[in-house]
Amino acid sequence: MVTVLSIVVSLAIILATSYQVSGLQSFNLIRQPVAPREHFWGFSCQSWRLGVETNNIRDWTTVPKLCEIYMAVYLLGPQYRKDSRIVTYEAFRYAESLELGDDGKDIWIFDIDETSLSHLFFIAQYGFGTEPLNGTAFLEWLEKGEAPALPESLKLYRRLLNLGIKTVFLTGRAEFMRNSTESNLKLVGYDTWEKVLLRNSSELNQTQVEYKSIKRTELVESGYRIVGNIGDQWSDLLGAYPGSRTFKLPNPMYYAE
Amino acid sequence: MVTVLSIVVSLAIILATSYQVSGLQSFNLIRQPVAPREHFWGFSCQSWRLGVETNNIRDWTTVPKLCEIYMAVYLLGPQYRKDSRIVTYEAFRYAESLELGDDGKDIWIFDIDETSLSHLFFIAQYGFGTEPLNGTAFLEWLEKGEAPALPESLKLYRRLLNLGIKTVFLTGRAEFMRNSTESNLKLVGYDTWEKVLLRNSSELNQTQVEYKSIKRTELVESGYRIVGNIGDQWSDLLGAYPGSRTFKLPNPMYYAE
Repeated sequence: MVTVLSIVVSLAIILATSYQVSGLQSFNLIRQPVAPREHFWGFSCQSWRLGVETNNIRDWTTVPKLCEIYMAVYLLGPQYRKDSRIVTYEAFRYAESLELGDDGKDIWIFDIDETSLSHLFFIAQYGFGTEPLNGTAFLEWLEKGEAPALPESLKLYRRLLNLGIKTVFLTGRAEFMRNSTESNLKLVGYDTWEKVLLRNSSELNQTQVEYKSIKRTELVESGYRIVGNIGDQWSDLLGAYPGSRTFKLPNPMYYAE
Repeated sequence: MVTVLSIVVSLAIILATSYQVSGLQSFNLIRQPVAPREHFWGFSCQSWRLGVETNNIRDWTTVPKLCEIYMAVYLLGPQYRKDSRIVTYEAFRYAESLELGDDGKDIWIFDIDETSLSHLFFIAQYGFGTEPLNGTAFLEWLEKGEAPALPESLKLYRRLLNLGIKTVFLTGRAEFMRNSTESNLKLVGYDTWEKVLLRNSSELNQTQVEYKSIKRTELVESGYRIVGNIGDQWSDLLGAYPGSRTFKLPNPMYYAE
């Protein structure tokens, strides 16, 4: 009896959540052009987000406009935190199970933006990804070096160090941003590392997958063992030598090939 | 004003949904042992499901017991359908964009269980994956050959055929099930195919990734081009020659390595 009642109550709540977006946001459909993916009946922002996180939806430029409120609720509410936490929790469980070498060559790769550091409050100004970011303003924001840590990643970082795993930060950021990048990392608590790898001028034309594959190959060739790799984009985790295991943090705000 | 009100209402709904599970299901915590992943504070069934779908959570045996009602609501409600539909929608958009050869060698690989056919109503008897399936009973169910199609996959199948892409069914099922498998596929509308590949006795010891990699390699070596590949398990989509693009359907009910 309790179970039946629970199912009915839950169904009502889920249905309400599921349909909220079309109800609350229908005025947006009148105001602006709708991306092709939003055309079909019963478009769901939750399904769109799952599609993005599973790499089924690729090469998108902005979040569907009708998902702006959905995104605000997701990103500022508890779910984004919980979704991040279960990933870093699994990563730690995995790391704990490893048998490490005694030569100090076991490393874990951290991506930086939306992995080690969070730009959520910058991106919030652009409708949580529903509007294109202003590249110049974003660069100015990064140069300030004041981005907060993604709390779950910082916790994982500390726990990995305690296990004796060294960390390498591998980012698509350009080499001229080294000072602001390193000072930002230190400011929020990432205070030690084996390497921070940024792109030099000859590497700026490469795709993320190409660039990161080359850098990881160099690491492996110089004797490191990549025991883990965490990032918010699939392009952090695909290609050559991705690592013995990879972990995908959520990021429904932007897509980097 | 409308926007602020909308955000407040949405937050209330999401918070209610987010916390429902611990409230309604807490009696389960007393009744049965809790899996390690469920120990940490604020465990969320929604985060668990995202973790599974993104391949962050691996090698799990059953769905966390406290997610039984969450699963019932997800799988029987509209969200599972919507989550499947956005995947097959993206797959069709991609397929439409392809330039096909004129030699009839472009193929699309379909997994069978929880991709072409659905066993949702069988698995519902086992608490939607929260209890281990009875292997003998499952085999008997499969042998009946009466499983319904996953409607989204059947629609994709028909649209791909219309585009001139041939289909190959590649499944972990054993060769002795060929008759029931083929008749089940035909019964629900998958009425033509290039091949249906099942495991022969020497292949039963291979992992899904090994077995499916070998079969895909054979296809490529005999001249086929795998333009797409759709499955509900990451083991359908990883390994050798996964296909020019892969699509991951949702399946939070069971895990196949």
